[in-house]
Amino acid sequence: MKAVVFLADGFEECEALIVVDILRRAGIETVTASIMGRLEVDSSRHIRVMADTLAEDVDFGPVDQIVLPGGKLGTENLSKNGIVKEQCRIFAQTKYLAAICAAPSVPAGLGLLEGRKATCHPDFRSKMAGAVYLDKGVVVDGNVITGQGLGVTFAFAFEIVKMLVGEETVRKIKEAICWRE
Amino acid sequence: MKAVVFLADGFEECEALIVVDILRRAGIETVTASIMGRLEVDSSRHIRVMADTLAEDVDFGPVDQIVLPGGKLGTENLSKNGIVKEQCRIFAQTKYLAAICAAPSVPAGLGLLEGRKATCHPDFRSKMAGAVYLDKGVVVDGNVITGQGLGVTFAFAFEIVKMLVGEETVRKIKEAICWRE
Repeated sequence: MKAVVFLADGFEECEALIVVDILRRAGIETVTASIMGRLEVDSSRHIRVMADTLAEDVDFGPVDQIVLPGGKLGTENLSKNGIVKEQCRIFAQTKYLAAICAAPSVPAGLGLLEGRKATCHPDFRSKMAGAVYLDKGVVVDGNVITGQGLGVTFAFAFEIVKMLVGEETVRKIKEAICWRE
Repeated sequence: MKAVVFLADGFEECEALIVVDILRRAGIETVTASIMGRLEVDSSRHIRVMADTLAEDVDFGPVDQIVLPGGKLGTENLSKNGIVKEQCRIFAQTKYLAAICAAPSVPAGLGLLEGRKATCHPDFRSKMAGAVYLDKGVVVDGNVITGQGLGVTFAFAFEIVKMLVGEETVRKIKEAICWRE
């Protein structure tokens, strides 16, 4: 399995990087792709991270999953990006899409969550038009996973692994990282 | 308040970066300091992060707290570093020290956890000679906070904020990040 995590200036760094860490532990080939036209991105708390590649250099053909991390400014950047919008349309319909915090507003803004159960950060609830909003940490509706915020990112990542690889792998990862329910 | 988080190649990136994020949210001036002689460090899951500064350029005088993230190779690098060892001695005795996962073995190896309650990743328990090992996610003993692994990093960061700033700030951060107990 292969996943791409989009990075943009202002991204909530650990909403992206916890996912990258957990997916790589699960053996999922996981690539961070900057949408800024440069590899170095600056997070919402000003941690500078080097993306693996640029979004424009990714071949999305063999990719199974895209992940959109939140962060207010990061999400604004994602929502304006042509590649992100195009891939959201494809992945929400035929592959796997996950978004957390402010970022579920991106596929929602494209009408892709119409009638689907989803969650997002409470501050962005008004931007979830069309979705059936649930006040839960993580919501799975078919091939779309949404999460509420930074504090539930591990649970969000576990759901992605469960969907792509299976529950037994999640169990092993939880043990390895000393996860406590 | 001021904190320094040491970064080394092979560090478990989110054990460091969740702490940086949460401490910055708490208004604690938080600096990432590379011990590699260069700003770019490569994490245990191969995420490249740019540190704010080099450890040799930090004035530890006004610093209140040092934090040691884990990761097997990252901890090995920390344990061999002169600045880390020197500052561990100072901070364990007169200021605040926090370490997670494999990293509590660094102060333990220097005899600084002698008779103190502490935890670490189960794989590193044999390197905690002298400490009173507790099988808990996070252990606070006076000015020393230890954590078991990546899965408890939020709880670990909350304890640091509680110690440096107070519980009310932790409550506000938990709400902002949609933390669920």
